[in-house]
Amino acid sequence: MKQQLLLLSEQESALRVERVRSSMQAIGLEAAFVRDFANLYYLTGRVFDGYIYLSVSPDISPVYFIKRPVHLIGEGIISITKPENMAETIVVKGKTIGLELDTLSFSAVQRLSKAFGGINFGNVSGALRQARAVKTPYELAMLRFDGVRHAEVYGRIPRLYREGMTDIELQVEIERESRLEGCLGQFRISGDTMELFMGNVLAGENADAPSPYDFAMGGAGPDPSCPVGADGTMIRPGMSVMVDMNGNFNGYMTDMTRTFGLGTLAAEALAAHKCSIDICHTLARMGKPGVKASDMYEKALEMAEQCGLRDYFMGHHQHAGFIGHGVGIEINELPVIAPRSRDVLQESNVIALEPKFVIPGTGAVGIENTYVVTDSGMETLTNAPEDIIYFPE
Amino acid sequence: MKQQLLLLSEQESALRVERVRSSMQAIGLEAAFVRDFANLYYLTGRVFDGYIYLSVSPDISPVYFIKRPVHLIGEGIISITKPENMAETIVVKGKTIGLELDTLSFSAVQRLSKAFGGINFGNVSGALRQARAVKTPYELAMLRFDGVRHAEVYGRIPRLYREGMTDIELQVEIERESRLEGCLGQFRISGDTMELFMGNVLAGENADAPSPYDFAMGGAGPDPSCPVGADGTMIRPGMSVMVDMNGNFNGYMTDMTRTFGLGTLAAEALAAHKCSIDICHTLARMGKPGVKASDMYEKALEMAEQCGLRDYFMGHHQHAGFIGHGVGIEINELPVIAPRSRDVLQESNVIALEPKFVIPGTGAVGIENTYVVTDSGMETLTNAPEDIIYFPE
Repeated sequence: MKQQLLLLSEQESALRVERVRSSMQAIGLEAAFVRDFANLYYLTGRVFDGYIYLSVSPDISPVYFIKRPVHLIGEGIISITKPENMAETIVVKGKTIGLELDTLSFSAVQRLSKAFGGINFGNVSGALRQARAVKTPYELAMLRFDGVRHAEVYGRIPRLYREGMTDIELQVEIERESRLEGCLGQFRISGDTMELFMGNVLAGENADAPSPYDFAMGGAGPDPSCPVGADGTMIRPGMSVMVDMNGNFNGYMTDMTRTFGLGTLAAEALAAHKCSIDICHTLARMGKPGVKASDMYEKALEMAEQCGLRDYFMGHHQHAGFIGHGVGIEINELPVIAPRSRDVLQESNVIALEPKFVIPGTGAVGIENTYVVTDSGMETLTNAPEDIIYFPE
Repeated sequence: MKQQLLLLSEQESALRVERVRSSMQAIGLEAAFVRDFANLYYLTGRVFDGYIYLSVSPDISPVYFIKRPVHLIGEGIISITKPENMAETIVVKGKTIGLELDTLSFSAVQRLSKAFGGINFGNVSGALRQARAVKTPYELAMLRFDGVRHAEVYGRIPRLYREGMTDIELQVEIERESRLEGCLGQFRISGDTMELFMGNVLAGENADAPSPYDFAMGGAGPDPSCPVGADGTMIRPGMSVMVDMNGNFNGYMTDMTRTFGLGTLAAEALAAHKCSIDICHTLARMGKPGVKASDMYEKALEMAEQCGLRDYFMGHHQHAGFIGHGVGIEINELPVIAPRSRDVLQESNVIALEPKFVIPGTGAVGIENTYVVTDSGMETLTNAPEDIIYFPE
């Protein structure tokens, strides 16, 4: 039953550790305890219950403190039953130690601090976010794989539609198709301000129902306990149906939206959809290393204005504050494409752009693709037809 | 587009507020900021992005600070764009203020503290957990509704089986059936130590693969990023298939497990399954207000020993440390039925009991039901046949 802890090659593992170390060094941390599932997965290729002790010194190998599962083996593993056990091995006195203060609960930090008789700690969350924002070639391969599967599932959506279906019924069939194609289901979001199950299908006016979350679109959702997305609207002629579903096929996720339609959509909706495609194409050409994320946001806003559609851009009754975001292990990574973002694009950032519109009377239109930033602009990872796709009548 | 914030009746809302207030008073808190989605849902009947300021004084009405969505109306609502805005209304100086320290990130607590120029804060997480552990009649009605739907879905599982199916394929069909029956998908877990998508289907030996999470059973999972549950095992004669899937049909969730089998299962597996049923029935009779949770655990362990099955009880290669848990808005509520639990059963606790076994060569067997504690013992909310259900061959 024994299994190797590390599921990454030595080279890949070393590359990731090196990136995190250099981000840590830049903010004056000497070592860190890493605990967040997404970060553990980044550093080892698997999720486990435990901590990684990572020193910035390349002479000190990472120590893997593992509570569960009990059958992992490999260099540097120390079995623990509780975090207090780590104090038997690691001395933190006199060092500035990074903890993931943006995701660790206050109680967890308190407990760790007490276990070590006090820690002089700093926040390592940002350093990990920075490191993870630039994907390794291996990570890009994972994301390319997702893009292909994701597009494959979307290609089957028109066949899933049946007359008289509600948005929820359509979503359930997409969920099934997606899961059978290998989608893992898990939708990883950093932080505690959003919840989402498998993604969003928005039909007609429901796209304009404000949600509590900072997603690009809203939707009333099926229940007040899950107030986002499909709400049971029956799909009728003249409605747009926006599909923005989970692209996690391997621990990494692509983000992709396509708009479907039934019957004839209003001219304004068609124009807005075209505007969204144009924005994506323009930003994809513009998105090179060194470009400011805020400039990309402004460009998108300017184009939406030129189309005369600013009031409907990124929502109507409630507007989202961004048009794109980094994506990888989690759906909300760096960089953020927003007006006040200080992020600057780097080679091998992976970014989802989603310039969307909500057109009263029709619903949500527009597209979303996931791109990788290269020297010659952004390359699309979610290759699939971008025009509105009509359901068979 | 305006909507009332409160989706609970005045009476129901007052009852819940009163329970939280009295739990707060017991630990010396004068007021609290509540932020966790599960707690916001408990207090208002909906999830939103914001905070509730709750004083222990019945003379001071709750204040609802709402960032999103923007269209909610009602008494006591104050619109905010960031937590700092709350300091314009609320003065915390000189008071001991509860924050949800078990779920709020360290950074969020720091930010709140700074916004108010310092807070003398205490931990309100436990008080909310205590209040939520005893369900109101309305909450019990919600859970009864879940139990009926949940049992309905399980009743259709034999028809979903096809020869040559893998555990994942079967799970996907159960997911679809469940979603079409109204399951919301969202699987709420408190804290950051577990992740689960829609539940677990464990076929054969995979039940014995240790997972990182503190669930009763493991399973290697479909991917190292989601290391729990179904792993692609083909369902073969002689295997048991344990189904433990999401029962969230309305914001509350029942927890329910049934064991399915293909062909003839080993005698030891059949005996273990019977032992699980016996343990459930015995504990259900025993589970009255005032009974210690630890005594229930000991009783279960004693019965497993009498069956000669202790080595296989709650896992084989890796053992779970509990046999039951409170359930409601989240899957891991109070009380916890574990050896060192200090919980004592109270009337209207809702508890899932899951005394399960992993039998080498066969897989996982046993049942799980959700019960409500009454004066005359625990009443089952998940009423469905408990014997092993065989797939058509």
